[in-house]
Amino acid sequence: MNIRMVGSAGLSPQATRRLPGYYNYLRDHLASEEEYVSAAAMAREFGLNEVQVRKDLAAVSTTPGVPRKGFLINQLLVDIGEHLGYHNNAEAILVGVGKLGQALLGYQGFGEHGVHISAAFDTDPAIIGTQVANKTIRDLSELPALGRRMDIRIGIIAVPALGAQDVCDLMVIAGIQAIWNFAPVHLRTPPEILVRNENLPAQLARLSQQLAARED
Amino acid sequence: MNIRMVGSAGLSPQATRRLPGYYNYLRDHLASEEEYVSAAAMAREFGLNEVQVRKDLAAVSTTPGVPRKGFLINQLLVDIGEHLGYHNNAEAILVGVGKLGQALLGYQGFGEHGVHISAAFDTDPAIIGTQVANKTIRDLSELPALGRRMDIRIGIIAVPALGAQDVCDLMVIAGIQAIWNFAPVHLRTPPEILVRNENLPAQLARLSQQLAARED
Repeated sequence: MNIRMVGSAGLSPQATRRLPGYYNYLRDHLASEEEYVSAAAMAREFGLNEVQVRKDLAAVSTTPGVPRKGFLINQLLVDIGEHLGYHNNAEAILVGVGKLGQALLGYQGFGEHGVHISAAFDTDPAIIGTQVANKTIRDLSELPALGRRMDIRIGIIAVPALGAQDVCDLMVIAGIQAIWNFAPVHLRTPPEILVRNENLPAQLARLSQQLAARED
Repeated sequence: MNIRMVGSAGLSPQATRRLPGYYNYLRDHLASEEEYVSAAAMAREFGLNEVQVRKDLAAVSTTPGVPRKGFLINQLLVDIGEHLGYHNNAEAILVGVGKLGQALLGYQGFGEHGVHISAAFDTDPAIIGTQVANKTIRDLSELPALGRRMDIRIGIIAVPALGAQDVCDLMVIAGIQAIWNFAPVHLRTPPEILVRNENLPAQLARLSQQLAARED
């Protein structure tokens, strides 16, 4: 007995975390001559169980795999991209144009993943008015009016810890509904605001911890 | 019946992901006059279930909570830090001193989280030999010898997609055992190498997707 829902969105959080890796692998694979990819080949590549990979792919794929061939790479890319929101065409604003903010502004990858950074803000008079990655950096005081006018829902906080809560408050006033926070602080927000904390040092510490655990 | 293991390391991945947020909150709380924090207060702050928070804290805390007071903030910080590897004092090297690499090199937070970036490498002659965040940028060709000599186990890849696999191969030759990869590619490594992919566009896409799902 094997009842499988094709295209089900009921993926576990673990499976959802594997999808971006699959996506990059498949996209790089487009350059090759192959039209199909098998779950077995991907399982080897990712060091995962084949049944697991097959299950992941079947859950997002809108067309079933072809026996002895596997999944059509082109279609799988579209399906995984759809699942991960890469086709959303959302707009975001960024506050804090230090090194990290500049890196994010210059990063080509966001467009490919369905999010565009439409405007960037800072409080430093030396930066305001200059161009970074073809965007004119604006004065932070313009954020509330501009955010409302442009109807932007996503805000990126790339300022140091000390200023992060003030920036967060301004974003909420500006109508921002989802915040991607790189500052190492706990933000206080109204309950309806989505907050995603990107704690880079904690990620690196986790890797170091996994390594240490293995060496025990 | 309530058998609870104090200081158990058997936390779920979900709980482990909540800990860095707790840590930042508690650290910022040290500035206040309070000595204790209650699970109830933290649950309110994080929009979580109180039982859940109490369970998380009990699992990492080396001393039980005090009735009607809660957990000693100082001790809880030490315990959570221990659990997350913030006391490891590991060393890492970084390859790729573009905007992102510069942001990572200049970031104060890593030291506090137990990881120090000891050396940084690039291939651009205009950058090699210059100082970034008090570190002299070295020629990438020095990586294998230097990595071995300094006995460094953690490598950070902050180069564009195209050069990432070559850098990865060099890191393996240099004796690196854990790789933190910011390049949007699937890396091929020997099976014993730990790889943690930091896919920033995918994170932003996920936030955008969660927001879109809520608006449906």
